[in-house]
Amino acid sequence: MKNVSAHEKIILGIDPGTNVMGFGVVRVCATKASFLDMGTLDMKKMKDPYLKLKRVFDFTTELIERYLPDEFAIEAQFFGKNVQSMLKLGRAQGVAIAAALERDVPICEYAPLKIKMAITGNGQASKEQVADMLHRFLKIPDEKMQLAFDATDALAVAYCHFLQASRPASDKKYKSWNDFLNSNPARIVNDTK
Amino acid sequence: MKNVSAHEKIILGIDPGTNVMGFGVVRVCATKASFLDMGTLDMKKMKDPYLKLKRVFDFTTELIERYLPDEFAIEAQFFGKNVQSMLKLGRAQGVAIAAALERDVPICEYAPLKIKMAITGNGQASKEQVADMLHRFLKIPDEKMQLAFDATDALAVAYCHFLQASRPASDKKYKSWNDFLNSNPARIVNDTK
Repeated sequence: MKNVSAHEKIILGIDPGTNVMGFGVVRVCATKASFLDMGTLDMKKMKDPYLKLKRVFDFTTELIERYLPDEFAIEAQFFGKNVQSMLKLGRAQGVAIAAALERDVPICEYAPLKIKMAITGNGQASKEQVADMLHRFLKIPDEKMQLAFDATDALAVAYCHFLQASRPASDKKYKSWNDFLNSNPARIVNDTK
Repeated sequence: MKNVSAHEKIILGIDPGTNVMGFGVVRVCATKASFLDMGTLDMKKMKDPYLKLKRVFDFTTELIERYLPDEFAIEAQFFGKNVQSMLKLGRAQGVAIAAALERDVPICEYAPLKIKMAITGNGQASKEQVADMLHRFLKIPDEKMQLAFDATDALAVAYCHFLQASRPASDKKYKSWNDFLNSNPARIVNDTK
């Protein structure tokens, strides 16, 4: 059961892979996003490719049932090493997408460069930099920061979706730094520690 | 409702694509396979990639509910033009596989070369040659032969799976042509017309 106020929205972010799948959940209240959960599904020891796909499908369905997300954001890589690994990745993405489609959760996808750019301002940022920014923005509990980058990567997709959805319809050009800050209160970090 | 005898088995063959998806259904009774149905799902006019994936998922689920297959065989291409088209194909395969996984239907996959080899004895056979052999083997009604090759390709996967499943456990070496014929009654075509 989801206990939410009228203006609340839950975003589930997924980073599907053939060995590890990451997930991150963000709660959006008005213009503010907060951390809800993140984690990974480790399939390194599973050998059968269909059992892996079944696990991705079941796990995604479990996440949807647990958090009842209003929106589903997925990290989608469009370039890879070779066609075979892309086919495998496509299948993993496909079953995760099928789980969302089955429950009628709207889907958005973001390329890794776009996610890094939205969160750090640099499309070439490292996974550490992305995780560090999320740690500050979303006040993630320290113990959760011990998880693999697959978890923070998935949380990054959810947070990137929040930033995209909450920004003005057109790519607004700001007149000044203060104009930007006033229009984007969610992007201000009060780092006074 | 499926009305089957104790030894009957239904195989659903699928050839998932991003624009057209083919399906073929074969009924196996003891060592004999017969044609049940085949067709296509045309998505050429659909633009939204998620609606396409949703359509593939729903259509595969409908086929599973209609024919209650015991086994699910899928044509899986392992090489393609580029990584982007392979990712799209992987997603289409992924959602079709998810539909079978959700209903606990066992899955097998076959590469196009293997399918052509199993049916015509030539891995480089044309789609016309594969369709022609299936027409003879399975006595497909002539009006069904007007369908696109996507349908006969999918039927070919189902029939290939039947041939694989019905052949001896080890790749048996036959002593003579008669030995092969006696061991593979399903592969004899009585082409007396």
